Amino acid sequence: MGRVTTRTPAVRIDLSDPAAPVVVSRPDTVTVEEPLEIRIGRTSFAVTMRTPGDDFDLALGFLLTEGLIGAAADVAGLMHCLDEDADGSPTYNVVDVTLAAGVTPPPPGSARELYTSSSCGICGKASIDAVRTQTRYAVGEDPVGPTPAVLAGMPDTLREHQKVFDRTGGLHAAGLFTADGELQAMREDVGRHNAVDKVIGWAARQDRLPLAGCVLMVSGRASFELTQKAMMAGIPTLAAVSAPSSLAVELATEVGMTLVGFVRPPRMTVYTGGARLGL
Amino acid sequence: MGRVTTRTPAVRIDLSDPAAPVVVSRPDTVTVEEPLEIRIGRTSFAVTMRTPGDDFDLALGFLLTEGLIGAAADVAGLMHCLDEDADGSPTYNVVDVTLAAGVTPPPPGSARELYTSSSCGICGKASIDAVRTQTRYAVGEDPVGPTPAVLAGMPDTLREHQKVFDRTGGLHAAGLFTADGELQAMREDVGRHNAVDKVIGWAARQDRLPLAGCVLMVSGRASFELTQKAMMAGIPTLAAVSAPSSLAVELATEVGMTLVGFVRPPRMTVYTGGARLGL
Repeated sequence: MGRVTTRTPAVRIDLSDPAAPVVVSRPDTVTVEEPLEIRIGRTSFAVTMRTPGDDFDLALGFLLTEGLIGAAADVAGLMHCLDEDADGSPTYNVVDVTLAAGVTPPPPGSARELYTSSSCGICGKASIDAVRTQTRYAVGEDPVGPTPAVLAGMPDTLREHQKVFDRTGGLHAAGLFTADGELQAMREDVGRHNAVDKVIGWAARQDRLPLAGCVLMVSGRASFELTQKAMMAGIPTLAAVSAPSSLAVELATEVGMTLVGFVRPPRMTVYTGGARLGL
Repeated sequence: MGRVTTRTPAVRIDLSDPAAPVVVSRPDTVTVEEPLEIRIGRTSFAVTMRTPGDDFDLALGFLLTEGLIGAAADVAGLMHCLDEDADGSPTYNVVDVTLAAGVTPPPPGSARELYTSSSCGICGKASIDAVRTQTRYAVGEDPVGPTPAVLAGMPDTLREHQKVFDRTGGLHAAGLFTADGELQAMREDVGRHNAVDKVIGWAARQDRLPLAGCVLMVSGRASFELTQKAMMAGIPTLAAVSAPSSLAVELATEVGMTLVGFVRPPRMTVYTGGARLGL
């Protein structure tokens, strides 16, 4: 439980001198990946492949950012089921969510139906409309954002905290910052959507939603899914070390979110919402 | 349809001189991300966020690697539904699969149940057992693999072909190679699982499964999901430019697949199945 990395046998090969390859057997550290099943009222709802740890935050953040609950208060309880693996050891890989009285459980398997619920043909526009309908926050009305200089400092802060955990090169990081550049929470996971869900679930449990004025900084690319998750948590600025997708840019533009990509100091590219950065 | 990249307004900021930030507005190229709905016999089965193009291969590869069909022959037909967006334009974002006579359609929403079908607690072991039960190929019995020197040449080959398409920094690539290092197919996508499904779907349509002696090279990390997909296509060697996860190593070890990570010539790390590389 909570095991983030593990050791595994490995053979390192160095072909610098093709005539004399160097082959060394030495244990290597890899990121742990295990399935997490999220149940609602004992009914299986979703399975995600994640790095163990902060599973309650992950479950809560997932339900929130998929629009299945609106606030932490919609959940009455979270518990690890006492499931066991073939050897009879507890796996801690099942979280059962008890919804608060009056909250309607979603139909089974509906987690991903956000994208298909539109009556018109399935397209980016329909996906964006679905997110707009689901969210309770108007990030477009939140004027607070970081300056470019503050934003430029965030990847280093993220990396400093990552160093503690990531000895594997195999983890995605998500950090929640204030507009002043103060790190509020950082989570790492083999799945970048899980890292974001863990951060947002953490904030939800502290009753901090909507995350007005905050910046979500991710170590990889900005996809539609991550933009949607930021939107559902009321985060007005999403920043990514790598590239955004077309639909991420479109969603951010539609809802008035700031989207910054390639945050590689001293450079960055602002795709939409530059006013919030003072541009 | 088939639009891989698109242009979007962007503002580039350079803070090299903090006292005089350079701010330039210039259109930027981003990777297109659009939802693809896969229907089976007109019933919605799954939605994936993907880069348009090769959608039939994607649908076929997805159904194969998730274990829902066993061969391309299990599919009688693939068609784009004539769905329309709000403006009445076709979106080409829905593929309807007609199964061959005698092939049982899966229960709705079952795509991800592979991981949860075990009677014991959900864990990595159960996920691995599920893949083992589903696959029809014994990759462990396939002795053919590339030499480390041939493997070391693959990232460059992949990148050369990527250059043609990826002007965005936002695409994952998957390449299928012979053991001699000849590239058979390369696909790029915002989702790395989609890139792999497109390659495998392409091979399936050519009736080339199992992909004996082949190498699947991916531009990013090796997760459980990608290892599973390689296994389901009968690919004995999976190579990744970045890190593998613990469960990817475990699955590869269990089924006798070769898993190589951090393929960054002249170096690479072999996590399991070194014998196939002549080690």
